[in-house]
Amino acid sequence: MEKVKIGLLGLGVVGSELVNIALNSKDSLKKNYGIELEIGKIFVRDPSKKRGVNIDAAALTTDPDEVVNDPDTDIICECVGGAGTELTYEYVMKAIRNKKSVVMSSKKALAFYGPEILCAANQNGVVLKYDATVGGGIPIAKILENCHNGEQVVRISGIVNATSNFIYTKMFKDNNTFDEALKKAQQNGYAENDPSEDIRSFDALYKAVILSMFGFGKHFDHSRVRTTPYSKIDLSDMKFANELGYTIKPVINIEDHGDKLLYNIGPCLIKNDDIIANTFSNFNIISITSSHSGKMSFYGQGAGDRPTASAMFDDVVNIITGKRIYKQPAVSEWKEVCERKNNQYIRVRAHDTIGKLNKITNILSEKSINIEKILQKDKIGDRYDIIFFTSSVENNIVDDLQERFKEIEVELISMIPFVED
Amino acid sequence: MEKVKIGLLGLGVVGSELVNIALNSKDSLKKNYGIELEIGKIFVRDPSKKRGVNIDAAALTTDPDEVVNDPDTDIICECVGGAGTELTYEYVMKAIRNKKSVVMSSKKALAFYGPEILCAANQNGVVLKYDATVGGGIPIAKILENCHNGEQVVRISGIVNATSNFIYTKMFKDNNTFDEALKKAQQNGYAENDPSEDIRSFDALYKAVILSMFGFGKHFDHSRVRTTPYSKIDLSDMKFANELGYTIKPVINIEDHGDKLLYNIGPCLIKNDDIIANTFSNFNIISITSSHSGKMSFYGQGAGDRPTASAMFDDVVNIITGKRIYKQPAVSEWKEVCERKNNQYIRVRAHDTIGKLNKITNILSEKSINIEKILQKDKIGDRYDIIFFTSSVENNIVDDLQERFKEIEVELISMIPFVED
Repeated sequence: MEKVKIGLLGLGVVGSELVNIALNSKDSLKKNYGIELEIGKIFVRDPSKKRGVNIDAAALTTDPDEVVNDPDTDIICECVGGAGTELTYEYVMKAIRNKKSVVMSSKKALAFYGPEILCAANQNGVVLKYDATVGGGIPIAKILENCHNGEQVVRISGIVNATSNFIYTKMFKDNNTFDEALKKAQQNGYAENDPSEDIRSFDALYKAVILSMFGFGKHFDHSRVRTTPYSKIDLSDMKFANELGYTIKPVINIEDHGDKLLYNIGPCLIKNDDIIANTFSNFNIISITSSHSGKMSFYGQGAGDRPTASAMFDDVVNIITGKRIYKQPAVSEWKEVCERKNNQYIRVRAHDTIGKLNKITNILSEKSINIEKILQKDKIGDRYDIIFFTSSVENNIVDDLQERFKEIEVELISMIPFVED
Repeated sequence: MEKVKIGLLGLGVVGSELVNIALNSKDSLKKNYGIELEIGKIFVRDPSKKRGVNIDAAALTTDPDEVVNDPDTDIICECVGGAGTELTYEYVMKAIRNKKSVVMSSKKALAFYGPEILCAANQNGVVLKYDATVGGGIPIAKILENCHNGEQVVRISGIVNATSNFIYTKMFKDNNTFDEALKKAQQNGYAENDPSEDIRSFDALYKAVILSMFGFGKHFDHSRVRTTPYSKIDLSDMKFANELGYTIKPVINIEDHGDKLLYNIGPCLIKNDDIIANTFSNFNIISITSSHSGKMSFYGQGAGDRPTASAMFDDVVNIITGKRIYKQPAVSEWKEVCERKNNQYIRVRAHDTIGKLNKITNILSEKSINIEKILQKDKIGDRYDIIFFTSSVENNIVDDLQERFKEIEVELISMIPFVED
């Protein structure tokens, strides 16, 4: 009987759930794979804290080195939660240098230091698994590992931030404003007290970095990217978009164009009958487009202790059962990282004066922006809103456009790209 | 350098695509895994037929025994298409007895003989892969193999028949009748000249048998199941359902209730904002509900040569790279297999006479069917249609109900279950 010992960095809600799943699965692992699974050392900050797990107090330690240096431990499960990116990186690297395979859950550490971590894992002949860092319970890492051998992944898109999708759903279905919906997300445990990483699109950006590494084999520094905050939408935009057959969703989209990565990270308009538009509440969806299989989409709980812990436990079992011949991806850096040009939804607010529309369209044509649809809505006071659907425009024109519109006393309220197949 | 030789049973559109993918991937397999992939013998019916593959004519044989008996061949790829279930079974078994791993694509042979095939594979220490038999390019087999180690799969549902979904989409979006839509499916290559296996729900049933084997570890004989033909819907039902917030979809649903399997296979009503309702054209969707991860759904091309061949090639690579510790599921038979009781949509047509509704509701309450919603539509001639949403009712009451309604000169036009989470 082969013995495998797992150590844990962190015993919060995910870590506790993981320990419970592991303990409940001991018999089936023995029966199915001839493996005796043991729980080794566990790093915690506060050993006196009550936790819902049946673990000997002697297993707990406040020194993470004791976990990663334990010679009997084979696999380290990192579930430190928000405990600091640098610290996570440091202990993941220590574990790898000690020849331990690692199951990660901290997206930020992986997004920031992915290439070094993968390189170290390859040099030390150990395995890194990361399914819990992206998409909660969606087994996207397992799909990327086991599929697309004979074809190219060309695009990865979808919704990977559960907090923002919950907020957008409340806006869409219950007519809440962004702030009202955010408050509900916080009350329901779908948003942190400080939700800035989520609503400023950084959480989604880190996940995009990870998906790029494992889907395309190329990494990019998150600081090279201009994201649009998911908070930058207005309930009226959602209503206008819907009237025109579209839903606004908190999207990521990354595309492999040879040496160049094209991306959109921010609110996007999606056709109402696209399944991304029909992904509601705290659910995530990740679509992979490849040269032979076309578009495949994977949909599931984007967060939650049990789906995340379950994903980590599957990672543990897949490390144990292993691949006979295994090649961990080595990643390089993208040469170019550019925001994708998209058709745009533009909403402006103007005073009701003669010639105003003419001045607006003048600016648009000056900027070579073609108008494909136009919709003028009821007056609000002495102002009215106009919505333009435009041809393909770079998103970063928005500041410039805002400036030019100001000169003619027109307010540029929103500019949101369309993301379509 | 390790050498691996694959033999093929069949060189139709899928087989040819598979050979092309394999030849194009030789270099990357060498680089990534140190594997020298070779194409061995290929069984074809007509060696003189022109095919779009760069294969030495000497590799082709009209004798399938030459393929499965070739001592140098390691993996047999079965892509015989519609070449006969018994024959497929026979040659898959011969290959397994000759200690060759097998990648299957014929769902019918696997659904009929799955337990024997798996048992033989286990006895001979070889691997069986089957991702191409269900869901085209959706990697459902890879997900079932690599996930849910610490939890129970309790339900598998979705759309697995691309032909019917294409037909339903044409009805829903273009107001085609079933027959008009079927004709379009045939013109577009999404339906066979004889479409009966698809529209009578047998194709979906075979896939449900396979998903039950690999998702629940239990097999059932397809003849134990009463499916409702997907062809048993009417354009009017689709419109009425939509008016009430539902879409009719060609669904499978199987649930693990201990010793008992509950199923629905036939047209079902799905809420408009469910992603199953938003799976259109020739796309498939498979949802897996498990005890920890909740509901996950996987969406992709349900058919097509390239997605299918790509899925088979991934199966080949996963056999080659292997698992260090591998356990192929051994399957048992379900003790009980019963149609699931569901809420129902019932449409009847009646003459406009006094007391008719009273007589109808009399019969319904006699059968202990509770009415939850009712909708009476415009008269058609001297008749009118009434739609009832009922409480949970066994689907097999339909014949009995039809009989009783006939006595009061009411026509039972449709009875369609709701499938909800």
